Amino acid sequence: MATRKLKIACAGLGRMGARHAMNLLTRTPRAELVAVFSPEPKEIDWARRELEPSGVKIYTDYDEMLSHPSLEAVLIATVTTAHAEEAIKAIEADKHVLCEKPLSTSVEISQSVVDAANRKPHLKVMCGFSRRFDSSYREAYERMESGAIGRPSVFRSQTCDRLDKSGFFVAYAEFSGGIFVDCNIHDIDLALWFLGQDSVVKSVVAMGICAVEPDLRKHKDVDNGVGIVEFWNGKIAYFYSSRMMAAGQHDMTEIVGTNGKLAVNANPVGSLVEMYEPTGVRREIPSDYWGRFQNAFVTEANEFTAACLDNAKLPFKLSGAVQAVQIGCALQESLNTGKKISYDETGRRVETAKL
Amino acid sequence: MATRKLKIACAGLGRMGARHAMNLLTRTPRAELVAVFSPEPKEIDWARRELEPSGVKIYTDYDEMLSHPSLEAVLIATVTTAHAEEAIKAIEADKHVLCEKPLSTSVEISQSVVDAANRKPHLKVMCGFSRRFDSSYREAYERMESGAIGRPSVFRSQTCDRLDKSGFFVAYAEFSGGIFVDCNIHDIDLALWFLGQDSVVKSVVAMGICAVEPDLRKHKDVDNGVGIVEFWNGKIAYFYSSRMMAAGQHDMTEIVGTNGKLAVNANPVGSLVEMYEPTGVRREIPSDYWGRFQNAFVTEANEFTAACLDNAKLPFKLSGAVQAVQIGCALQESLNTGKKISYDETGRRVETAKL
Amino acid sequence: MATRKLKIACAGLGRMGARHAMNLLTRTPRAELVAVFSPEPKEIDWARRELEPSGVKIYTDYDEMLSHPSLEAVLIATVTTAHAEEAIKAIEADKHVLCEKPLSTSVEISQSVVDAANRKPHLKVMCGFSRRFDSSYREAYERMESGAIGRPSVFRSQTCDRLDKSGFFVAYAEFSGGIFVDCNIHDIDLALWFLGQDSVVKSVVAMGICAVEPDLRKHKDVDNGVGIVEFWNGKIAYFYSSRMMAAGQHDMTEIVGTNGKLAVNANPVGSLVEMYEPTGVRREIPSDYWGRFQNAFVTEANEFTAACLDNAKLPFKLSGAVQAVQIGCALQESLNTGKKISYDETGRRVETAKL
Amino acid sequence: MATRKLKIACAGLGRMGARHAMNLLTRTPRAELVAVFSPEPKEIDWARRELEPSGVKIYTDYDEMLSHPSLEAVLIATVTTAHAEEAIKAIEADKHVLCEKPLSTSVEISQSVVDAANRKPHLKVMCGFSRRFDSSYREAYERMESGAIGRPSVFRSQTCDRLDKSGFFVAYAEFSGGIFVDCNIHDIDLALWFLGQDSVVKSVVAMGICAVEPDLRKHKDVDNGVGIVEFWNGKIAYFYSSRMMAAGQHDMTEIVGTNGKLAVNANPVGSLVEMYEPTGVRREIPSDYWGRFQNAFVTEANEFTAACLDNAKLPFKLSGAVQAVQIGCALQESLNTGKKISYDETGRRVETAKL
Repeated sequence: MATRKLKIACAGLGRMGARHAMNLLTRTPRAELVAVFSPEPKEIDWARRELEPSGVKIYTDYDEMLSHPSLEAVLIATVTTAHAEEAIKAIEADKHVLCEKPLSTSVEISQSVVDAANRKPHLKVMCGFSRRFDSSYREAYERMESGAIGRPSVFRSQTCDRLDKSGFFVAYAEFSGGIFVDCNIHDIDLALWFLGQDSVVKSVVAMGICAVEPDLRKHKDVDNGVGIVEFWNGKIAYFYSSRMMAAGQHDMTEIVGTNGKLAVNANPVGSLVEMYEPTGVRREIPSDYWGRFQNAFVTEANEFTAACLDNAKLPFKLSGAVQAVQIGCALQESLNTGKKISYDETGRRVETAKL
Repeated sequence: MATRKLKIACAGLGRMGARHAMNLLTRTPRAELVAVFSPEPKEIDWARRELEPSGVKIYTDYDEMLSHPSLEAVLIATVTTAHAEEAIKAIEADKHVLCEKPLSTSVEISQSVVDAANRKPHLKVMCGFSRRFDSSYREAYERMESGAIGRPSVFRSQTCDRLDKSGFFVAYAEFSGGIFVDCNIHDIDLALWFLGQDSVVKSVVAMGICAVEPDLRKHKDVDNGVGIVEFWNGKIAYFYSSRMMAAGQHDMTEIVGTNGKLAVNANPVGSLVEMYEPTGVRREIPSDYWGRFQNAFVTEANEFTAACLDNAKLPFKLSGAVQAVQIGCALQESLNTGKKISYDETGRRVETAKL
Repeated sequence: MATRKLKIACAGLGRMGARHAMNLLTRTPRAELVAVFSPEPKEIDWARRELEPSGVKIYTDYDEMLSHPSLEAVLIATVTTAHAEEAIKAIEADKHVLCEKPLSTSVEISQSVVDAANRKPHLKVMCGFSRRFDSSYREAYERMESGAIGRPSVFRSQTCDRLDKSGFFVAYAEFSGGIFVDCNIHDIDLALWFLGQDSVVKSVVAMGICAVEPDLRKHKDVDNGVGIVEFWNGKIAYFYSSRMMAAGQHDMTEIVGTNGKLAVNANPVGSLVEMYEPTGVRREIPSDYWGRFQNAFVTEANEFTAACLDNAKLPFKLSGAVQAVQIGCALQESLNTGKKISYDETGRRVETAKL
Repeated sequence: MATRKLKIACAGLGRMGARHAMNLLTRTPRAELVAVFSPEPKEIDWARRELEPSGVKIYTDYDEMLSHPSLEAVLIATVTTAHAEEAIKAIEADKHVLCEKPLSTSVEISQSVVDAANRKPHLKVMCGFSRRFDSSYREAYERMESGAIGRPSVFRSQTCDRLDKSGFFVAYAEFSGGIFVDCNIHDIDLALWFLGQDSVVKSVVAMGICAVEPDLRKHKDVDNGVGIVEFWNGKIAYFYSSRMMAAGQHDMTEIVGTNGKLAVNANPVGSLVEMYEPTGVRREIPSDYWGRFQNAFVTEANEFTAACLDNAKLPFKLSGAVQAVQIGCALQESLNTGKKISYDETGRRVETAKL
């Protein structure tokens, strides 16, 4: 008599993977987490404690997990470098796929996932741009769509991580694709959402500095980056990313239209408590993206599940993930070459020399 | 191999009951909603659509529901006038009980539930003071307990409902117990929590007006009330309740200590969107208590479930529910007689004539 | 060819008096500060340095100052106990008078100033309720008058001083008239302004505690007080005053109407700087009333000057100062007797025994 | 016996000039406004009404005004195109000069004013970067200097004017120098102040759009511009300027350091009133720069006056005005050529072709 549930597996049980697994287990009523995969002993231990008692099967081999009986869908939350291969394997095994962002830090590899998905149009394949599921961003989008700010024209967005003095970000930079691909990928995706997914890039420029982590230079990265993207439709987006926010995570976005502006999280809110102290009035802000976006991940899991079960449309196209990586890589290239990069109206790159 | 779940039923499927039922069904992983009860055909219809497909049994008779096989716990969310009787019946049938506030608008009847619970000490019986489960209130309490504001001394709290021009509040006032019992019961409970559950009331006074609903007078009620409660431990609490907030629900609390102040929800937040418009900067606020406290209800359901399954202590005592109703009724009495009410240090009422 | 200026003197050069004198000297273009009076050697020294070089004559005798050639007006900022006598003397000497609040902590003495002023209707005599000149309060009043919140119904206002551990407030309490007269006098005056100067008090009740300064009890005072005032026109005002705000001065007001609410300074602003620090986001607030209201005092001086020169109407009546003291004294009495005080519809006090 | 006052004249009585004149007349105690100049009949009329009665002499010829007996200083607030010539004339006539920003929209002409001033080192010559006198910016600077945010690294600043549908900005653009010179000149000056006046520009890039005023293109201007400036000391500044803010003027600045961030006016404040309305909570913001910065102009006038009278150091050097125009012009050039502009470590421009 019970309603049918989507049999789903979760690949990767690191920081984010474990959270995805718990969401699927306890906060996604229409999903049944049947299997998980991790190659890491520590993660396996965690899964034994937290998941196995609820009947979740643990795999240390991704391919074996894919063969779990009746498995219908896979959520991929492994390291970025594994995303594309695992996604393609899952698609080929006829599973729906929700893949953490980015598909890859390479445009070509990202495109290969899209190609694989296009060959299986009956599958739901989505890249996990979690902010698209955040209720505040959705509210802002609906207000914009209803005409509240006139024509959206200038888009500003930042992703700023809490300062981490452990050196984590240096090691991480080796495979992250760089700050514009790793952090601003979200902002870029939002820009495409708010300014129009069909916006064609006209030019891209970026600059950056190493204010706290000079060692980032060896990975051609920075800890603070600023970039501008101009579109052929007369719209403009600019981005800031940082690894050194003292107060916590501060991701925010502004959409300026011809008749108003929408700001999302300009004033970050950790809780509804304000403290009046001898030094003034203080409020805390979320220390990481999880504190800011955890509900968005729950919505993401639920909507993906529903789309699979009901064969409904996903809220956005997989190809957008390639567009976002493309822009992120161009910003990163501009940062490193010192050159502005230009495109013609069809989106084809124009040689700088010809400018 | 699956973990054991608490078999629970939900009595009452009105506005709040339906929400409780959905929380138990989809957001309380350790609970299994096995049965619901409602005498209302419309609510039954809703349950057929939303609950039955998930295997929930529907009853139109409360006693029959209590006899549902293996039932362990009941959440009571019927009309206030039914709370006490149903709670006592459930206790006598050896079920754990989570009863919506207030147990009753009568002190004596409220006490009878406590008495029944005391006869079954192995049962978990809790009154649903949802704000005790709100993360911001909990954060404030922890900060206070850690000494952040010195000795808490003055407590201010308000429960302000959105203006409802339909006349709903007049009809509702017939059984609500009055604005101090219905709205401020939460604030009173919070005052006891923050100022000390063992605080003894010294005096109580209240005044009020009918600003938008003169017909409330026929139920000895008002649409705006202000009350003060003084405690023998040298602390003071004051309350405001209103039925005419234009912008939405605005429940807020301030705890003033000898070295700082904590404010909870002084600046209500509907979302993280701020709108810059020709008329200024605007943000929306939650339109009702659900918009403000929905996560608290989820936490409440989960913690109650865990306490039942693990035979753990509930976060607060049932007797507090009687204290809160007692103060609420005294405020309501003061409002209607125009007299200040006093108590001696043992909490015994002192005749006004002797003052 | 120069425009005529009002020849004015300033009596009292203490904390507030010195500020008034400087405002008259440097920020009141149509006034000419010609004389000052102080009996205090330290204040005289200050005046020699700061005022004499600009041609201001210094007096140590109030009566002599009143005889300063061509003197037209006097601003009285001496100790409260001297206000009334000096104001009456100045009125009798045919000078316009701007007297700091309160005229006196006694209703009768306050009334005697009004009586004196009534005998000289050609003079401008004003009590310095500075908040009436504050641009935010004025904006709120205009919005209310324009109908923005419907009918104003509930008024809440607080005056909260920064915690001062020096014991200053204990000594000060001997002559201050008590916290409701000293602090809340401003809030009471605002209540009369916003709810209608002709509002007749129906009842008054107050409670208070000594949270940080137990010695206040010897002056029949408290360091935290809460009071309610009910009016016969169906409106209600409630007040909070405190001497222990850790973060700074926090005076705020809310006017709740049948269709909206106006809040003045609910979020105090020391400057436009917000600090993002490892402990969160912080802003400072003004540490004293001067930080909050200094511009209001400048406006006050300028408008009083203009009214004198142009024989224009003052923005509010002197008699309001008696009303405010009357309510303040009643709150203080209620605090100390523990009794609610009632009045009939003509404003005559009703014996408690008869209630 | 009166203290000596600086005899000053005000050239230009337009929107800003009139305000400067009134400030000198009524809010600058140590200055005496003795003369004004304007060629505009309407402005002359205004001066007859508002200034002449106070003894101010009105001139319609700038050179004659310079010859006003005993004149010591001139405040220049005429049209931008006249600034430099008039400033140089005044310097040559041995007058102190406070010149509205910018000295000129041309780097060379701006430099000629600096050269003139250098030939008369006994004179005080200042460019009116009003934000340097704003108390919030000063507070932020002091906090930064005290080490509150570690090393300042990323600077963001915007100047956003209220949307003006009259077409004013199109006509204005003919002589304004473009949005980066006209609006962002302030932000650029602030960047130099906060990041170090000796910061050497490494590269400059800008993009912009015409979202509401396509006609701006004919003056090579835009209504929304974004620019980035990278410095050789490893710091970065980025700017936004706009002519289409619906809610009002919103100028704001963020200084991100290695250990914290300071935000100035991130949340613009028109008054301390917050309105709770059926559509939410609303606050108004200043509609123009005057609403935001009027006190800064008063401080500017007073500090300039004091520096002249006391032969004290001005708070910043005149040469900074050339630096700011230089950067503003480079941003404007980059906007129009589509090219990034680079400089070597000595500040010499590097040919783009060589990049």
